[in-house]
Amino acid sequence: MKKFAILVAGGSGNRMGTEIPKQFLELCGKPLLMHTIQVFFDYDSACEIILVLPEVQQKYWKELCMKHSFLPEHKIASGGETRFHSVKNGLKMIDDEGIIFIHDGVRPLVSQETIRRCFEMAEKSGNAIPVLPVTESLRKLEGNQNITIDRSQYFSVQTPQTFRSEQILKAFDQDFDRAFTDDASVVEKAGFTIFMVEGNPENIKITTPTDLIIAELFLKNQ
Amino acid sequence: MKKFAILVAGGSGNRMGTEIPKQFLELCGKPLLMHTIQVFFDYDSACEIILVLPEVQQKYWKELCMKHSFLPEHKIASGGETRFHSVKNGLKMIDDEGIIFIHDGVRPLVSQETIRRCFEMAEKSGNAIPVLPVTESLRKLEGNQNITIDRSQYFSVQTPQTFRSEQILKAFDQDFDRAFTDDASVVEKAGFTIFMVEGNPENIKITTPTDLIIAELFLKNQ
Repeated sequence: MKKFAILVAGGSGNRMGTEIPKQFLELCGKPLLMHTIQVFFDYDSACEIILVLPEVQQKYWKELCMKHSFLPEHKIASGGETRFHSVKNGLKMIDDEGIIFIHDGVRPLVSQETIRRCFEMAEKSGNAIPVLPVTESLRKLEGNQNITIDRSQYFSVQTPQTFRSEQILKAFDQDFDRAFTDDASVVEKAGFTIFMVEGNPENIKITTPTDLIIAELFLKNQ
Repeated sequence: MKKFAILVAGGSGNRMGTEIPKQFLELCGKPLLMHTIQVFFDYDSACEIILVLPEVQQKYWKELCMKHSFLPEHKIASGGETRFHSVKNGLKMIDDEGIIFIHDGVRPLVSQETIRRCFEMAEKSGNAIPVLPVTESLRKLEGNQNITIDRSQYFSVQTPQTFRSEQILKAFDQDFDRAFTDDASVVEKAGFTIFMVEGNPENIKITTPTDLIIAELFLKNQ
């Protein structure tokens, strides 16, 4: 079955306390996004990679690819107003049936095993999202109070959120809803049951300078 | 108002993949627990520190204190079957009224600001727990399905969970309940409203070799 990876990189870099959007920050000498693209290329070099980038960043990205002699082939789609719109733009570039991974550009540490688990479950059941158990105690706001929560019922969600093309295309035909927190929530609203597989703990979303340092450590330990 | 800190260190070390209980692992050349004790000593040298340790580890701990010439004064209580029982043993050593911090021994990176926020809120309102917003998407099991959750209503809980002595003593007079996930849940079951204050992101619970590396990074950046 054909494979597609939509890598979403919409960051403008503010939370990092830097002018450089976080997807371009260097991790072990190479922009974050190149690591992420490489992981999917290593997983399957036939996987069609679509990078979603804000239009204003696309020229700079191409210069970076030249500078780093970055070879893995990928198409570029334009980022939208929200993640929903960005993913929708990425989906427009897919012209065949298959399995579609939708992955955060700033999660370069997703493991090959996580990607494989997502693919296998999505092939069998229509979709898959990688999750990990919540390890800290949770509390929930309820009105003016906050209450203890049984965390064993909760899972922390990573990407790649993975879908058969017919499910994700149908889902993204819906009107935008502010309750869409991730791609699975869009597919869920279209009436599909979501299937969870195990993620990997290193698969963090890099959004702070500390995350970048942690990611370097993980990469060096690989 | 008098201050007490009960530092709970019940770990036997299995998750670390090591024979040494994690509270004794070295962080920048010193056992984890010594860092944690030092933070409370630095916060207020008059704060009475009670370390709760499994009985079998107490001799080794005293040897470590000699070896590292570790001076901050602290009492030692014996660990119990669960956290509830360990905290209860710690509480038995407190013979005065005041504010009681209950803190995980393996969270050496709690900031002075977090401790201060906890103290001030507990003095005013009876208790305080440090929390952070949940940053990853959450899903919840409901029967056979799992559903999207609005994470903005959820908070991730750290320690020190901090209480006026009359609240915590009344709460720990209750019979043990398996639903007690942390100290706040015990106090909540005794009928008190729990108050949240802001924690600090570095205040991680060290339970894996990776956490130890991350903690070293944080410590070096301080």
